[in-house]
Amino acid sequence: MAFSERVARLKSSLIREILAAAQRPEVMSFAGGLPAEPMLPKVEWADMPASMGQYGMSEGEPALREAIATEARALGVPCDASQVLIVSGSQQTLDLASKLFIDPGTEVLLEAPTYLAALQAFQLFGAECIAVPQEADGPQIDALRERLQNHKPAFAYLIPTFQNPSAVRYSEAKRDAVAALLDEFGVTLIEDEPYRELVFDQGSATPIVSRLHKASWIYTGTVSKTLLPGLRVGYLIATPDLYPYLLRLKQSADLHTNRIGQWQALQWLGSEKYRGHLAELRDFYRIRRDAMQAVLEEHFSDLADWQIPQGGLFFWLTLKQPLDTRTLLAPALAQNVAFMPGEPFFIDPDAHPGHLRLNFSHVAPERLAEGLKRLAEVIRQAQSAI
Amino acid sequence: MAFSERVARLKSSLIREILAAAQRPEVMSFAGGLPAEPMLPKVEWADMPASMGQYGMSEGEPALREAIATEARALGVPCDASQVLIVSGSQQTLDLASKLFIDPGTEVLLEAPTYLAALQAFQLFGAECIAVPQEADGPQIDALRERLQNHKPAFAYLIPTFQNPSAVRYSEAKRDAVAALLDEFGVTLIEDEPYRELVFDQGSATPIVSRLHKASWIYTGTVSKTLLPGLRVGYLIATPDLYPYLLRLKQSADLHTNRIGQWQALQWLGSEKYRGHLAELRDFYRIRRDAMQAVLEEHFSDLADWQIPQGGLFFWLTLKQPLDTRTLLAPALAQNVAFMPGEPFFIDPDAHPGHLRLNFSHVAPERLAEGLKRLAEVIRQAQSAI
Repeated sequence: MAFSERVARLKSSLIREILAAAQRPEVMSFAGGLPAEPMLPKVEWADMPASMGQYGMSEGEPALREAIATEARALGVPCDASQVLIVSGSQQTLDLASKLFIDPGTEVLLEAPTYLAALQAFQLFGAECIAVPQEADGPQIDALRERLQNHKPAFAYLIPTFQNPSAVRYSEAKRDAVAALLDEFGVTLIEDEPYRELVFDQGSATPIVSRLHKASWIYTGTVSKTLLPGLRVGYLIATPDLYPYLLRLKQSADLHTNRIGQWQALQWLGSEKYRGHLAELRDFYRIRRDAMQAVLEEHFSDLADWQIPQGGLFFWLTLKQPLDTRTLLAPALAQNVAFMPGEPFFIDPDAHPGHLRLNFSHVAPERLAEGLKRLAEVIRQAQSAI
Repeated sequence: MAFSERVARLKSSLIREILAAAQRPEVMSFAGGLPAEPMLPKVEWADMPASMGQYGMSEGEPALREAIATEARALGVPCDASQVLIVSGSQQTLDLASKLFIDPGTEVLLEAPTYLAALQAFQLFGAECIAVPQEADGPQIDALRERLQNHKPAFAYLIPTFQNPSAVRYSEAKRDAVAALLDEFGVTLIEDEPYRELVFDQGSATPIVSRLHKASWIYTGTVSKTLLPGLRVGYLIATPDLYPYLLRLKQSADLHTNRIGQWQALQWLGSEKYRGHLAELRDFYRIRRDAMQAVLEEHFSDLADWQIPQGGLFFWLTLKQPLDTRTLLAPALAQNVAFMPGEPFFIDPDAHPGHLRLNFSHVAPERLAEGLKRLAEVIRQAQSAI
């Protein structure tokens, strides 16, 4: 069978396999980015017009595009509805951007670590990935300047607000510095913000795209983390030089995003009901984060270091005694515990052993302590065997 | 701005622009493949479990995959549920297959004419398209053999049942001959069947994939033409050598298909209610087809030749005095009439002037005669101006 050359770069997806394993009800999964079941809002369908069953426009529903543009402007993103494209979950933004920008060998600039599924999507199309190390308040600016001086990336892909996996939120100073560098070198920014609304401790800084003066940009978000992931409704907002191409690529990919989910999203965005739901969600997740922090203090303080995440869905642990955490996965699953090894979030996994990403939103509190205790035990056993 | 080289092959989509124009309520559109609004079934959502709001599996909902495999086996397609992948509309099958097979210069084999959006998807990835002329009962078999002897296509993409745009249904003999040739040359078949259930005059022949003994295959369908296109739920069934790659490509494209639409599709597939709806749909469309046939006889019998379609959604007209039908689009739209020019359905549009694709499902009967009369007038004026 003669496949395309890109198929040789098609990796078996750890995310997919873990999510499949985590479907077993007995598994305590710290692996995915799944919302807590009790916080999935009850949605009504009775008022949906029959016309939502018909084919729609590739751009998305006009009213939803308006609502998203309004929300984005309130965040400081300069845009109007004509720049909004509704996508089938923000994962699709990565596919469309890959098609728009990436040939085999095209350089793209990423954080280290970065979102695993983004890395896989870019690499599938043949991207040559260049990494900038992540610090507690955002990327190393000197390293970013050096990369931009020595490379010509087609775009920089950044997750500045509660990054997946590191939970880092860029500081104001680093947001400004990143914007200035991208403007200086004329590099397009793809800013991915699925977690912006899941903020626990204080308001979030304005997006980096709102600080750009010259560079082109794509800003992407989703309702998956705040409403219902099963709807598969996300969006991108793009500068006018990019939008027409992204629209045609969207049409070629799947004609348009399902209208049922678009209609449901529109019932929530910008509404009082949604604001109330978000407030409840933040309270709920803050409590879960605090509960995990307490249990981590108990079982992991001698094993790992971490920062308390101020938003998002993850703790990012750095083992004091590094080992390849991929080797922990099988023994953990044998104990009915799932987690996400840190190595695959790096371009060069073998050079970055010793991180674990732990989701705090999904496991019920009554199983949290047991799950983390088992995981700590798996780590201790592995380390004692070295 | 440095885009990927594929962007240079990204064509402005006639379909998208016509569908956009056809959204104006005053337009009588014979252009799209839109189901008739009155035949969109009333669907219920009240019983949908809240769990459908959560993330799901990339493969699709297990129960829906079972239901689709059961239906396919009843058609003669040898498969089980593990070979079924739920996709975001069958357009996505074309995107996934393109990613799996096509590098710049990869040869693929198509009917002439073929489905426009398939042609665009394959060409976007750089396919070198090879065409086999379509006859009234399927492809020219001698031409197919010649192409297979002289080329090495990665796959053959065929729409054997009420083809879009030509409305051709392959005969039994041609189905067997095509299967034998693909087996002989070891060429993968992608069989696209959106219109199979829309049959007006007699039962349809079994799929070609069920006649293959050696060649790999992908069989793809959708609920868009029989239930609700706005759900964006389609499926593919693939031989086990292809399935794992398609699954990973699906995950990279959009994680999974929306579960809301999948749940709704499951309420219908294989049910008594669905069989009843299909029977009503066939009756309804048969009447619309007959109505269009009567009006065409009146206004087009001196202008064009055509076959009466036995299924699907389209008449395919061949002008007796060929001209580039793309030049008719603007004057037709000025008369509030939309249709689909035939040229873009060919690899070499300029070499195939003089066809029009007319959809008979969408325009209400009371506007049908007026719309076609205006279109005939536009053609007459253009021909008199030559």
